[in-house]
Amino acid sequence: MHHVLTADQFSRADLDRIMQRSAEMEAILKQGGTKMCDGKILGALFYEPSTRTRLSFETAMLRLGGSVISESDVTFSSQSKGEVIEDTIRIVGGYSDVIAIRTKVKGEAKVAAHYSPVPVLNGGDGSGEHPTQSLLDLYTIVKHHNIGNEPLNIAFVGDLKYGRTVHSLAKILRNYEGVSLQFVAPEAIQMPSEYVNSRDSIHTTLTDEILQTADVIYDTRMQKERFEDIEQFNQVKNAFIFTPEMVHKMKPDATLMHPLPRVNEIMQAVDSLPQARYFEQALNGVPIRMALIAEALEV
Amino acid sequence: MHHVLTADQFSRADLDRIMQRSAEMEAILKQGGTKMCDGKILGALFYEPSTRTRLSFETAMLRLGGSVISESDVTFSSQSKGEVIEDTIRIVGGYSDVIAIRTKVKGEAKVAAHYSPVPVLNGGDGSGEHPTQSLLDLYTIVKHHNIGNEPLNIAFVGDLKYGRTVHSLAKILRNYEGVSLQFVAPEAIQMPSEYVNSRDSIHTTLTDEILQTADVIYDTRMQKERFEDIEQFNQVKNAFIFTPEMVHKMKPDATLMHPLPRVNEIMQAVDSLPQARYFEQALNGVPIRMALIAEALEV
Amino acid sequence: MHHVLTADQFSRADLDRIMQRSAEMEAILKQGGTKMCDGKILGALFYEPSTRTRLSFETAMLRLGGSVISESDVTFSSQSKGEVIEDTIRIVGGYSDVIAIRTKVKGEAKVAAHYSPVPVLNGGDGSGEHPTQSLLDLYTIVKHHNIGNEPLNIAFVGDLKYGRTVHSLAKILRNYEGVSLQFVAPEAIQMPSEYVNSRDSIHTTLTDEILQTADVIYDTRMQKERFEDIEQFNQVKNAFIFTPEMVHKMKPDATLMHPLPRVNEIMQAVDSLPQARYFEQALNGVPIRMALIAEALEV
Repeated sequence: MHHVLTADQFSRADLDRIMQRSAEMEAILKQGGTKMCDGKILGALFYEPSTRTRLSFETAMLRLGGSVISESDVTFSSQSKGEVIEDTIRIVGGYSDVIAIRTKVKGEAKVAAHYSPVPVLNGGDGSGEHPTQSLLDLYTIVKHHNIGNEPLNIAFVGDLKYGRTVHSLAKILRNYEGVSLQFVAPEAIQMPSEYVNSRDSIHTTLTDEILQTADVIYDTRMQKERFEDIEQFNQVKNAFIFTPEMVHKMKPDATLMHPLPRVNEIMQAVDSLPQARYFEQALNGVPIRMALIAEALEV
Repeated sequence: MHHVLTADQFSRADLDRIMQRSAEMEAILKQGGTKMCDGKILGALFYEPSTRTRLSFETAMLRLGGSVISESDVTFSSQSKGEVIEDTIRIVGGYSDVIAIRTKVKGEAKVAAHYSPVPVLNGGDGSGEHPTQSLLDLYTIVKHHNIGNEPLNIAFVGDLKYGRTVHSLAKILRNYEGVSLQFVAPEAIQMPSEYVNSRDSIHTTLTDEILQTADVIYDTRMQKERFEDIEQFNQVKNAFIFTPEMVHKMKPDATLMHPLPRVNEIMQAVDSLPQARYFEQALNGVPIRMALIAEALEV
Repeated sequence: MHHVLTADQFSRADLDRIMQRSAEMEAILKQGGTKMCDGKILGALFYEPSTRTRLSFETAMLRLGGSVISESDVTFSSQSKGEVIEDTIRIVGGYSDVIAIRTKVKGEAKVAAHYSPVPVLNGGDGSGEHPTQSLLDLYTIVKHHNIGNEPLNIAFVGDLKYGRTVHSLAKILRNYEGVSLQFVAPEAIQMPSEYVNSRDSIHTTLTDEILQTADVIYDTRMQKERFEDIEQFNQVKNAFIFTPEMVHKMKPDATLMHPLPRVNEIMQAVDSLPQARYFEQALNGVPIRMALIAEALEV
């Protein structure tokens, strides 16, 4: 079955196929959608807050002509009666043709897939993985950069220790030749060593050189509560806020990404600059998830 | 774009067109609906409780053949992570073809419209406006009274100070010739002067004469917490409860309206009287919202 | 109107017709669904937690080609503003073509049906009834046993005092010849006498003989809080947990049922045994509810 559970599962051929299919889906979207999943049902189980991911999965299924059953409140479900995920997934998997699930518990999407009678798409499992996010991130890069064919300098900025999106994306990018990764974060929230290899570079401050040379900057939010020493947070926080002045230093065709929601780590005045592609990035979730649903349903 | 944000935006020609389109939609409803919005998606963002308004918008879109993505819990959304409405609306506006939004914050629907890539229908913005309610109120009056062509005596009763529905409806009624408005409320919750003009009459008690002469009575709930002086509330509250005896004094073809929910300000024994049209009024929300969605989507 | 409110409403002819229709719906499901309810709307009002029942009703309507409007959070509805169910049902019944409702209040589904302009399907009213559950329970039995034509020995096990599902199912089974009922429960939570007749047998322990002779065992969860004397609960609880060893004692073609959610009263190791049919039972909710919706809509 075409489960999507982890960034590790994709070969370069898989990624090429998914990127191609997503581009086709984007063309279909411009035509107003399709009926290729008419009569099919997506079961959306969201046991953790996520407006964007849930609505994007639901939109993808609707644009494919299918429909959706949805459960989005953990306090109001069988889970609150103590039912195990194995039972829930067997039932909802029996109602629907494909499942998108987000849970609070790392590894739970994999458990769900084991018991599900239908394909499971992992919409985020706690501190674990968020592979559909990584694919839409990759798709955004693919659309604007010649990744794999030309050298590409990608800087990850912000909370690299706890952000599951940067972990998964870093792994996926290892499938492409010529990609250099730079990890830019205060020491307390720097990239864990398991995701770093010997050719990557590590920085604790966001320098002009990084801004000027990066083809892609992937920013994430630094959260105060991640710092043991609040003083350290207060010392660095302003240096990591993207201002228009900083973005003007980036190459004209560079891409500034962010998984959203963004609070104040990118100023709103940046939104209108050509490098700002985080809204486009979010919208790329629809064609990516259309492609993944279509693969899962083998249509 | 065909945003619907405020009662102020409508000219008489707009109102005539919307009333006409709603009548057509009502005929379509009797035929079992249409597919004119097949493939289109309504994004329903309800950040404040509202079963009736949300379900009525969703029903309208489904009866038009479209589908719906829906977010209805403020505690379970990107908003709770501190995302600004500008970002949310750009994303959800990118997923959907038209947005219906209700927020707790006055003016926020207008902000949403500014940033939205698709039309925004204001489903109520805090103490601000609720224009689709006013249009369904007007539609209810149009169906039963020859408004604009014959003199029409409309009495607003109850909480006129804080009720956004009466403010918006009063403004809309100014587009029609021959409409006399009467405002009937205890002083503490009387109509703000900005909505009153020199030909209107103001009353603090609901007299037999008002009951006997009104063509339309628009009742709203008085809430105890709106009174600084609870004694004053206790003195007047019973005089504003509609009993069958009071409604029998109304003209046989008069209309008693209420935006609902009704608690005890209209007795249930009134429901079966011919003047009681508040349930019909609520159901008129569907053809009105079908008309507004169709206009927004230019279908 | 084809309301479904109580297990008492069904004659044997009704049950035969519904079982037949559900079998047809199951065949339709295998073909990928139907469009027989195209353009129709199910209003799903769930004022009490119930992932399984709500999603199963919604799935049923979608597989019939219809669509759904849904309200599933009691804290976020007109009900929280103090509106009576009569008003809510008149409005939502005006939006939709058929209503499925679950409430916290016994008898409220019947009140809803009285005021609804469209058929009402009771999805559980507090400690009252849950008739669609009983019908899917019956359907599960019908599929695997020759009920009504051969003697059938059905044992109810667990909390028989408070479980509305066992009350309703027991009543429905009285329509069939040759069915013997056994009630197996600690005294504190034994079957109320109104549901017991003179040919039934009553047991306080789950003996090997019961396991070996039952054609159907219907297990339900015993909840600690139902016992006045916690010591009594602790004494009996382990004797009522279904282990693989116990299920191996059952006839090979016997059926072990459970309304779910199951916590630990049936061990997960039992799930793979042929007698374990509780997941199939849950999935039978879809064809049953398709049949009931189709009857309600007269399609």
